[in-house]
Amino acid sequence: MNEDRNCQWRIAARPSGNVTREDFVYEEQPIPDIGPGEFLLRTLYLGIRPVMRMYMQGIEIAGEKPLAIGDVIHGRGVAQVMRSKHRDFAAGDVVQGQLGWQTWKASRGTEAERFRKLEYSGLSYSLGAGVLGMNGFSAYTGLVHCGYPLAGDVAVVSAAAGGVGSTVVQIARILGCRVIGIAGGTRKCALLTDLGCEATIDYKNEDIDARLSELAPGGIDVYFDNVGGTTLETCMEHLAHHARVVLCGSISEYMLDEPFGLKNYTNLRMVNASMTGFFVYNFEHLFDEATEHLAKWIKSDELRPVEDVVEGFENMPDALARLYDGDNVGVQVCRVRPDPGDPGDTPLRGVSPK
Amino acid sequence: MNEDRNCQWRIAARPSGNVTREDFVYEEQPIPDIGPGEFLLRTLYLGIRPVMRMYMQGIEIAGEKPLAIGDVIHGRGVAQVMRSKHRDFAAGDVVQGQLGWQTWKASRGTEAERFRKLEYSGLSYSLGAGVLGMNGFSAYTGLVHCGYPLAGDVAVVSAAAGGVGSTVVQIARILGCRVIGIAGGTRKCALLTDLGCEATIDYKNEDIDARLSELAPGGIDVYFDNVGGTTLETCMEHLAHHARVVLCGSISEYMLDEPFGLKNYTNLRMVNASMTGFFVYNFEHLFDEATEHLAKWIKSDELRPVEDVVEGFENMPDALARLYDGDNVGVQVCRVRPDPGDPGDTPLRGVSPK
Repeated sequence: MNEDRNCQWRIAARPSGNVTREDFVYEEQPIPDIGPGEFLLRTLYLGIRPVMRMYMQGIEIAGEKPLAIGDVIHGRGVAQVMRSKHRDFAAGDVVQGQLGWQTWKASRGTEAERFRKLEYSGLSYSLGAGVLGMNGFSAYTGLVHCGYPLAGDVAVVSAAAGGVGSTVVQIARILGCRVIGIAGGTRKCALLTDLGCEATIDYKNEDIDARLSELAPGGIDVYFDNVGGTTLETCMEHLAHHARVVLCGSISEYMLDEPFGLKNYTNLRMVNASMTGFFVYNFEHLFDEATEHLAKWIKSDELRPVEDVVEGFENMPDALARLYDGDNVGVQVCRVRPDPGDPGDTPLRGVSPK
Repeated sequence: MNEDRNCQWRIAARPSGNVTREDFVYEEQPIPDIGPGEFLLRTLYLGIRPVMRMYMQGIEIAGEKPLAIGDVIHGRGVAQVMRSKHRDFAAGDVVQGQLGWQTWKASRGTEAERFRKLEYSGLSYSLGAGVLGMNGFSAYTGLVHCGYPLAGDVAVVSAAAGGVGSTVVQIARILGCRVIGIAGGTRKCALLTDLGCEATIDYKNEDIDARLSELAPGGIDVYFDNVGGTTLETCMEHLAHHARVVLCGSISEYMLDEPFGLKNYTNLRMVNASMTGFFVYNFEHLFDEATEHLAKWIKSDELRPVEDVVEGFENMPDALARLYDGDNVGVQVCRVRPDPGDPGDTPLRGVSPK
């Protein structure tokens, strides 16, 4: 990465199957100037998210403009304000918001970018690209405000070792649920046990249907769905009376050519269950509430952010490909530059995957 | 029908495609005796419902025992108690509950039969097999307690001229919704306009998708689904923010060999919409509330029961086949014997389809 230039990753081609290095092109531009009403951002961390492949395919999603070939890829993260002619942001502020896959950005602070200031609270700013960013806000608002978990409920979480899932698992446990985490592989399942899952299902080596019958004979009260597809369909066979299914993500479907058809949606009927779609930006009024709870739980060691930090902007494309391979654990974050609030080289409280 | 015998319709064969006369066998048995704790029922009305084909296929549904070839077909209706050795029922009482396709029944009043007494209120007892029975209770509890309709909401109802639909349409209108009814053919759509639909969609002659874009540019707030399948999928393309989809029935799917796969269920996400499954017997605690409201609205002429009364027990098989042909309007009821509370030959307040 060239510190004197604005380094960027742009789309070279629409991905087919998983993303490959050939789908990206690296470019360097001059560091932008700012005009009246603008501020200059220096990227610290960039989050790496499953939705990014959809951005690259030109699908309009999450209110972001559809990307053309050659565009800088959308990506949210944490940045420091270096200079400002904007009344709401001052040099030195650290913010989270829409930066794009680039190392500098001149911004007017538009509504679409959704920049929020991060208060330094002794926690690593990397968390602003993860559990104290949209990832954690998704986990909190989706589980609490769509799933209505009650103490004693059986809560099942898929992609439970992932960025959103690992936080959902812990919030559910804090709220008194019996948590069953679904993930692929023994390493991920061991992490889930560490995070407080009462039981885990290793979908690569176990039959989800049989295990759910065994672990939740009375059915699932809350199913937090990060994967869609056949995992969702299987969980739909195990719904308890008044079960709540929260649709958060569908990573298993992103690479299908034909949309997945959910054949047992009518299972919602006999048990008066509901399936609620969830999109984090519709819950912006709850982000302060989410931040307050999440930061409190992190400080009291009840909630451990699980971060998978990739070092170096040059590794963004490979880091994204790993998401779809199912290799990553926790929230995937790229550290573009050292954290100004961090005394050392590692995040203050992140749990590194083993 | 032989008045001195218990006339019955039993299953001769599992239906394939629509039901045909060959799937039924007619039998006559002696009128049953009653023992201690039993009461003898003389059938007045039998409801004819889409779910009956599933009963005939041996599918366990609605808590009824799966039927074997040769069994009397399940069917709820209205009957008069002729003799009783049961403490809760007396000779002369009129009840609604599980009678089966037969003209007499000896019952112990089990929980599965769900017999409820009907108070004579000047309304035809036929309504106890329709709008003041499970049909109307489905419409009321499904719409009000799962759909949460608000005044000003756009409410879309499919199979809107059917037994449940024609009541849902009217309750939604009474509660101040702008109601769009979907039905097949100009006769049914004209009825819907009479019942207070602001607009109708004739799915046999109009494109539902295009019409919804035109009629509900701001999207659908409540979709009451009686049909499932592609109609549901189309409505899912038009959901407003916080839309509520109520899954009540799937008549379009009953005759498919392969279960229908709902491909756009993830549309619930971007608008934070929810889909709630609904099964009327889970709302038994609300049946008195439903009866009270429905009877009040009928008496004040705000709600007009739409009954399609078939005369004669011998016509039950044909009446059921008509349901799947989409020919019937309103709730399909078979009048087995004259209504003891009815001064004439026709139901007191039912609107006969034109």
